[in-house]
Amino acid sequence: MAVKTRKEYLESLKAMRPNVYKFGKLIEDVTTDPATKRTVESHARAFDASNDPQYAEDFTTDSTFLPGEKIHRWSGMMEGLDQVMGNSKLKRWMYRFTGSCTGGLCVGWNAQNVLWNVTAMTDKEFGTNYQQRLKKWIIESQKKGLVVSGALTDAKGDRAMRPSQQSNPDSNVHIKEVRPDGIVISGYKTMICGVAASNEVFILPGSGYREDDQDYALSCVVPRDIEGLTIVETRRASDSRELEEGWDIPDSGITQAYMFFEDCFVPNERVFMCKEFKYSGKIIEYFTANYRACIGACVAGQGDVMIGAGALMARINGLAASTFANKMVDMAVNNETTYAMGIGAMALGKKGPGGMWVSDSLIAHANKVHVATLPYVTKRICQDIGGGIVETGCFPSYADFKNPVYGPTIEKAVKASDKYSAEARARAARLSEWLTLGAGVPGCMHGGGSPDGAKLVVRALTPIDQFADYARKIAGIKEQVPEPEKKKK
Amino acid sequence: MAVKTRKEYLESLKAMRPNVYKFGKLIEDVTTDPATKRTVESHARAFDASNDPQYAEDFTTDSTFLPGEKIHRWSGMMEGLDQVMGNSKLKRWMYRFTGSCTGGLCVGWNAQNVLWNVTAMTDKEFGTNYQQRLKKWIIESQKKGLVVSGALTDAKGDRAMRPSQQSNPDSNVHIKEVRPDGIVISGYKTMICGVAASNEVFILPGSGYREDDQDYALSCVVPRDIEGLTIVETRRASDSRELEEGWDIPDSGITQAYMFFEDCFVPNERVFMCKEFKYSGKIIEYFTANYRACIGACVAGQGDVMIGAGALMARINGLAASTFANKMVDMAVNNETTYAMGIGAMALGKKGPGGMWVSDSLIAHANKVHVATLPYVTKRICQDIGGGIVETGCFPSYADFKNPVYGPTIEKAVKASDKYSAEARARAARLSEWLTLGAGVPGCMHGGGSPDGAKLVVRALTPIDQFADYARKIAGIKEQVPEPEKKKK
Amino acid sequence: MAVKTRKEYLESLKAMRPNVYKFGKLIEDVTTDPATKRTVESHARAFDASNDPQYAEDFTTDSTFLPGEKIHRWSGMMEGLDQVMGNSKLKRWMYRFTGSCTGGLCVGWNAQNVLWNVTAMTDKEFGTNYQQRLKKWIIESQKKGLVVSGALTDAKGDRAMRPSQQSNPDSNVHIKEVRPDGIVISGYKTMICGVAASNEVFILPGSGYREDDQDYALSCVVPRDIEGLTIVETRRASDSRELEEGWDIPDSGITQAYMFFEDCFVPNERVFMCKEFKYSGKIIEYFTANYRACIGACVAGQGDVMIGAGALMARINGLAASTFANKMVDMAVNNETTYAMGIGAMALGKKGPGGMWVSDSLIAHANKVHVATLPYVTKRICQDIGGGIVETGCFPSYADFKNPVYGPTIEKAVKASDKYSAEARARAARLSEWLTLGAGVPGCMHGGGSPDGAKLVVRALTPIDQFADYARKIAGIKEQVPEPEKKKK
Amino acid sequence: MAVKTRKEYLESLKAMRPNVYKFGKLIEDVTTDPATKRTVESHARAFDASNDPQYAEDFTTDSTFLPGEKIHRWSGMMEGLDQVMGNSKLKRWMYRFTGSCTGGLCVGWNAQNVLWNVTAMTDKEFGTNYQQRLKKWIIESQKKGLVVSGALTDAKGDRAMRPSQQSNPDSNVHIKEVRPDGIVISGYKTMICGVAASNEVFILPGSGYREDDQDYALSCVVPRDIEGLTIVETRRASDSRELEEGWDIPDSGITQAYMFFEDCFVPNERVFMCKEFKYSGKIIEYFTANYRACIGACVAGQGDVMIGAGALMARINGLAASTFANKMVDMAVNNETTYAMGIGAMALGKKGPGGMWVSDSLIAHANKVHVATLPYVTKRICQDIGGGIVETGCFPSYADFKNPVYGPTIEKAVKASDKYSAEARARAARLSEWLTLGAGVPGCMHGGGSPDGAKLVVRALTPIDQFADYARKIAGIKEQVPEPEKKKK
Repeated sequence: MAVKTRKEYLESLKAMRPNVYKFGKLIEDVTTDPATKRTVESHARAFDASNDPQYAEDFTTDSTFLPGEKIHRWSGMMEGLDQVMGNSKLKRWMYRFTGSCTGGLCVGWNAQNVLWNVTAMTDKEFGTNYQQRLKKWIIESQKKGLVVSGALTDAKGDRAMRPSQQSNPDSNVHIKEVRPDGIVISGYKTMICGVAASNEVFILPGSGYREDDQDYALSCVVPRDIEGLTIVETRRASDSRELEEGWDIPDSGITQAYMFFEDCFVPNERVFMCKEFKYSGKIIEYFTANYRACIGACVAGQGDVMIGAGALMARINGLAASTFANKMVDMAVNNETTYAMGIGAMALGKKGPGGMWVSDSLIAHANKVHVATLPYVTKRICQDIGGGIVETGCFPSYADFKNPVYGPTIEKAVKASDKYSAEARARAARLSEWLTLGAGVPGCMHGGGSPDGAKLVVRALTPIDQFADYARKIAGIKEQVPEPEKKKK
Repeated sequence: MAVKTRKEYLESLKAMRPNVYKFGKLIEDVTTDPATKRTVESHARAFDASNDPQYAEDFTTDSTFLPGEKIHRWSGMMEGLDQVMGNSKLKRWMYRFTGSCTGGLCVGWNAQNVLWNVTAMTDKEFGTNYQQRLKKWIIESQKKGLVVSGALTDAKGDRAMRPSQQSNPDSNVHIKEVRPDGIVISGYKTMICGVAASNEVFILPGSGYREDDQDYALSCVVPRDIEGLTIVETRRASDSRELEEGWDIPDSGITQAYMFFEDCFVPNERVFMCKEFKYSGKIIEYFTANYRACIGACVAGQGDVMIGAGALMARINGLAASTFANKMVDMAVNNETTYAMGIGAMALGKKGPGGMWVSDSLIAHANKVHVATLPYVTKRICQDIGGGIVETGCFPSYADFKNPVYGPTIEKAVKASDKYSAEARARAARLSEWLTLGAGVPGCMHGGGSPDGAKLVVRALTPIDQFADYARKIAGIKEQVPEPEKKKK
Repeated sequence: MAVKTRKEYLESLKAMRPNVYKFGKLIEDVTTDPATKRTVESHARAFDASNDPQYAEDFTTDSTFLPGEKIHRWSGMMEGLDQVMGNSKLKRWMYRFTGSCTGGLCVGWNAQNVLWNVTAMTDKEFGTNYQQRLKKWIIESQKKGLVVSGALTDAKGDRAMRPSQQSNPDSNVHIKEVRPDGIVISGYKTMICGVAASNEVFILPGSGYREDDQDYALSCVVPRDIEGLTIVETRRASDSRELEEGWDIPDSGITQAYMFFEDCFVPNERVFMCKEFKYSGKIIEYFTANYRACIGACVAGQGDVMIGAGALMARINGLAASTFANKMVDMAVNNETTYAMGIGAMALGKKGPGGMWVSDSLIAHANKVHVATLPYVTKRICQDIGGGIVETGCFPSYADFKNPVYGPTIEKAVKASDKYSAEARARAARLSEWLTLGAGVPGCMHGGGSPDGAKLVVRALTPIDQFADYARKIAGIKEQVPEPEKKKK
Repeated sequence: MAVKTRKEYLESLKAMRPNVYKFGKLIEDVTTDPATKRTVESHARAFDASNDPQYAEDFTTDSTFLPGEKIHRWSGMMEGLDQVMGNSKLKRWMYRFTGSCTGGLCVGWNAQNVLWNVTAMTDKEFGTNYQQRLKKWIIESQKKGLVVSGALTDAKGDRAMRPSQQSNPDSNVHIKEVRPDGIVISGYKTMICGVAASNEVFILPGSGYREDDQDYALSCVVPRDIEGLTIVETRRASDSRELEEGWDIPDSGITQAYMFFEDCFVPNERVFMCKEFKYSGKIIEYFTANYRACIGACVAGQGDVMIGAGALMARINGLAASTFANKMVDMAVNNETTYAMGIGAMALGKKGPGGMWVSDSLIAHANKVHVATLPYVTKRICQDIGGGIVETGCFPSYADFKNPVYGPTIEKAVKASDKYSAEARARAARLSEWLTLGAGVPGCMHGGGSPDGAKLVVRALTPIDQFADYARKIAGIKEQVPEPEKKKK
């Protein structure tokens, strides 16, 4: 059962304790509730692909720990370049299949690999046995074919203060108590993708911490329905349409959750970091290196769909897609940039201390700068091609189309080329709207850290002094030219 | 009563026949229905400003036709640079006051000035008395302080065919019958801004036409509630929130309508072009010149609010706005670019054949290229400053905040700086979302014509041959270098 | 003689004392020496245009002080929008005629208008009679049809220290002695455009100064050949070609000088600021407002020639210019942006304290940001269209063309379309090279101040707090949201 | 001797027949003539690095054909990802060491690998033994440690006609005669990098050809001094400075040549394609895939030096380099983009038909788009940081510095921070000028093909229909939406 079917996946979700809320109400069944069924559908398509010969190579892999066993690719270890590239490829496929983010196939996967490297370091220094615990959990996860989202971002509170300085200690998730058999955690994680579609949640520290903040240096994995955890799904643009009937929104989707941990007990075998603050920064370093390399594939995959959506709109309007070839080339260059630069970061990476691959940080963070900017250009071009009907979704609602009196007139007015139905035009326009300013926008600018943070890394890893020295030698300057000491004007 | 109060304005709307629909239902009172009350509120703020000494200079002006009478600026004639600049200034104020578009103060105003110039030409050539009719209507409009939206964009049908070639003649609004006392019109106008908040609608041809399409060469003005007209408001991103309680959407807003004319009778005194196709292109030329000059102020005004929204988010997060000074400078440069380039187009303009000012077409259309691109950058920066909570509006709904069980926890999690309430942070984040990917996005890329259309004008008005000749002389080339004839490779 | 001929202009230059050097040698006659004759030729074309009916309207104007007298436009007062726009128009023409900068028609003209405003303030506060002196000088200048360059930029020395703190007081031009009949000045001005082609030089302070630096608060006008002044022309890219025979460089050109003042005596009637440091900042403010508005026309005019150069290259290569229509539209949009945004700054300006027009500072400085960036894009496109032969000027020298053995083969290899000579292709390619990476590059990024300085002004003049308040009201936030006090993380 | 020393390299050049000209004169010794010694110096630094333990790993490799033999990396075979990445790394180092292009280490290396793949195909189809010839030549080249430039670009003639249609058959290099023992070739190759520093030249067809043009389907390798070959070095910006004394230009450099072949006899063992036009396109395809992947490293390496040059200027001006940290981050992101996207193209590549690695074409060509644009931004920023002295090289010449009278004053005026000499500031400024608008600009926009050509490949390789189908499925559109047939408006 290491490679699960859609049906088995849905059943695993249905079996869980309801603890997800939206619009003030408890969601009894995430697989059918309109607020969550789209993200579940999106994730389910990964199970379809895992069982589809056309895609199985990209969606499954061999287990490192279970000899001869095929597993879902997102449960696997990333020991080399090929496996990390496999992460990128899977992401690009998933965006092409769903149009948006499937967070339950992303952060947990990366987290287990990052922790493999970091536990090698903590175990070595502190004599802990975190890696052994982790391995046991990974094997279970592979056997069960779990979907595991991951939680880094804390609520944070005041951005000018550290966690231990916050007036509310729950602003960041922390260890409230260490017991012999496990730990008790409390606090808020926010903006966590794909939780409603996940079986478990991998918890990581939100930043690298100093000693004062050691209670926040914490990593563990918990069932999504663990006692004490309340999950509230956030709004997104046009999300109310998910509650409506009709074609104003696609069938796939994304969710992002606020997670409130209140005295949740996590048994030791699921704890992989407990106050070893010295290595909390390493988690962030390794996590972001791979995450920001791979996220280029996400926005590339969505960009592929935007090219396709542009082609649909053009054709349904009565024009050839080739009318907009220049614009589509611009979109394609954007897509391939974030995708290939991420691949470049991987190819320039190397094995970490535990043997798992770590992409090149400088390139990965430089890539994040593009991930935070180029998709906005691609979206603009998609709207440019589609026309006003796409730019703001400016045409009547499904309910108006179905009005018995004036609905037929709307149909006539929306219809463009005689070859295509008004419904096809409506659906194509709503798709473009959804991708560019609707509920399908995945949030990749700040997801996994802000572009400003990425620029700080680029700055830190660019060897200005070395570059100045190359320049000095070419210029034939004999004097040394060091950074001056500060003086006041 | 030439300068009306908010109260008088609202009463004028209430007095009209209900003929506006949304979500499959008739709107009985546009001033109170949640689907339209926000755009009405937005327009009402222009009446407040007209009566506020601080803003009266920009919001009122002297009537050209009613000696000594103060009128709303948007009812006035634009005889010179100052009056056209006044158009820009009013637009920038309105965006600052409402965050989005108030279409009822825009297209009708421009249309009456454009038609003044064009009727001078048609009257001269054809001996018609259109300008006299127009003058009479303008005087009435000034006296009544009307809000007049304007309708150019037709449903169009197949983009590869002209109006008379369409399988459905209603794809474009046209003259169905010419009677001695007026004309009968039918067809669809789409994506018309501010209709629900307007008293009347100024109809313009959607393009310049040839003889075959002369029935589409048509200009007139009709009451918004004219018999035979059905109006369906379009969806926009997150517009369902307008039906909800709470702070997930601001109190101001915008609407864009589909208008279905079915055998509407327009009396002669309201008709200003009737099949004079030769001059339909002139309407487009003059209209776009001023419109695309002024629209720079629209996106600039929204950009001002985005700078402000960024400052709010920074401060409520516990940071100084000055942390993001570089980004705000980038936003400001974008804002001032579209604003000032529009002003430049005006200053380089001249009086048209009827005496009304026409901005420089080349500059105005070059400006449209920026209007279609720079605001996307400004929006991205606004999201960049605001963080993930802004990028996708990623935090719980108002209904969740008010949930008695977990609502208080949400408050704690959303709160950042101790100095500000969670509600303030929620409202600031929702504003940024609304401005950048919500119902506040005004649609200025395609509004008034696409950027590709603008580029065609730039191409046509750039004197390549003359520039080649300057280059040739500087280079000292004695040979003439004309455009070669086509040959096949 | 207020409107001088080319011949009279050249004679006025020949009559001056030789004090200009380049490549280690004194230039005896700037009108014939290869190092300076090109900039003189460029300026001479303005005299041609002044006497050409086709351009006389833009190149001449009526004197404010000499009733009924026509003068060169660059000698005139800028009392209103039309006159400042006239400055822009003249600049665009001059770039179209010469391909580069004619500094002697620019800074002095602006300076006399700026000082008119500033002397109104100093005379009022200090009871001086600077404006009267200035008026007298302006009248003389108008009568003589002078070319007057202007000198702001000082050598500066250490960028982290103020003038009075520099180890070498000459790093900035300063008043060394005040005598009853005049002042003695010393110090270095650098990167001053058009000096070799000028009759006089208008000196302005390089920055706004505090009391400590009052000796540097200085404005006066001096003959170019004043005793004690040594001028050294700077290198520019490919400037050695100016010394060669042939077509590797055009006949027009630009120079930029280092000026070394050593105990130069300036009589009182030519001194317009003498230590009134309080108003030195006003000079900078007014100067940059008009200068940075007008400079948009400079790069626009050069951009026009780049469009033309691209068209030439395309045609001579055997292709139609229209092959590159999209690229030319991009170039045209860039050109019209800096031109029209500058015009917008003017139209939003107003009369200064002395009655001369001052453009809007915010817009003018925002425009400078574009002036410092967009031309780089335009140049890139020019090289893109022209091909490798343009990108780096990658083809043999004139001397190689003329080699009797292999020269004929070069001709055959360089020739493209049969319709045009190899010489024409060489000249067109060298022109593009000269415009984009050769001696024709005018230096408009830092000319008149750096883009970083311009951004500081944009930052200072953007009312963030007011914008935050608009946002706050639209968001419905009741709390005040001021800038927080600093705290330490 | 497979790893040669600088000395041995210089001797190998001195031993050749003089056949290189510039400025109308024959160059007797390319290693000492001022017109060519800089490019020779640049290449010589690669020999230094080959023998320097710090760089030997990147500059040497194991021979595939000579067991146990170390060879220069640029003589090696690229059988896998690591070897192609090695190409990129070497290029980035070389730009860091020399500031510009060392063409003799680039095209020949790539060509021998491309031909290995293509000869596998031609030998298979036509029963030729090209690969065996090639192998023999490669082994010789490895043993001798040759520098081999490569020649693709033909003079072309009229761009609207194919080679066989040109009025001058020499416009493209072609086979004039096939003899039993070899071929006779004639025609012009242009803009060929590094020829003066090379031992041999690898000739490739300039494009993919049809049957009509089969005489142009040609690949072979010739000694640089082969009988019948005349080489004329082209001008570049400021190249006359190479003839001058002093610091106005660095000691390293680049050359680009026009090559005139006149009845040159090439023996069969050096011929690898002879009229097999069907596979000429394959040469272009494989060549550009690797070339455009690797060229990202070139501009990245130059960008590194520009960051360094910016840091030098800042410090010598008295400021910290960190003042410009934001700008340097922007530069670094540009550099890492072209570098890493190239690496990504490689990592997504695969072995070609002969076993040599071929990078992914789509990504490689998308990268070329960035290579043709981002360096212009980086150059602009370099000029932005450096100030006016850098923007146009606006300060006196070396000859003026050395003038006994005013030279000392120039020194004082150019000196900025007391800590650094005027010479250091002059050298740093001249370096920045050389890199951004001087003789150091390498010509990477059109080098190896234009960006427009690259965009055509991106267009061809982007599967629009497939993307439209993903979009269609996500939108839930049941109808097929194919590209419409053309119709006329």
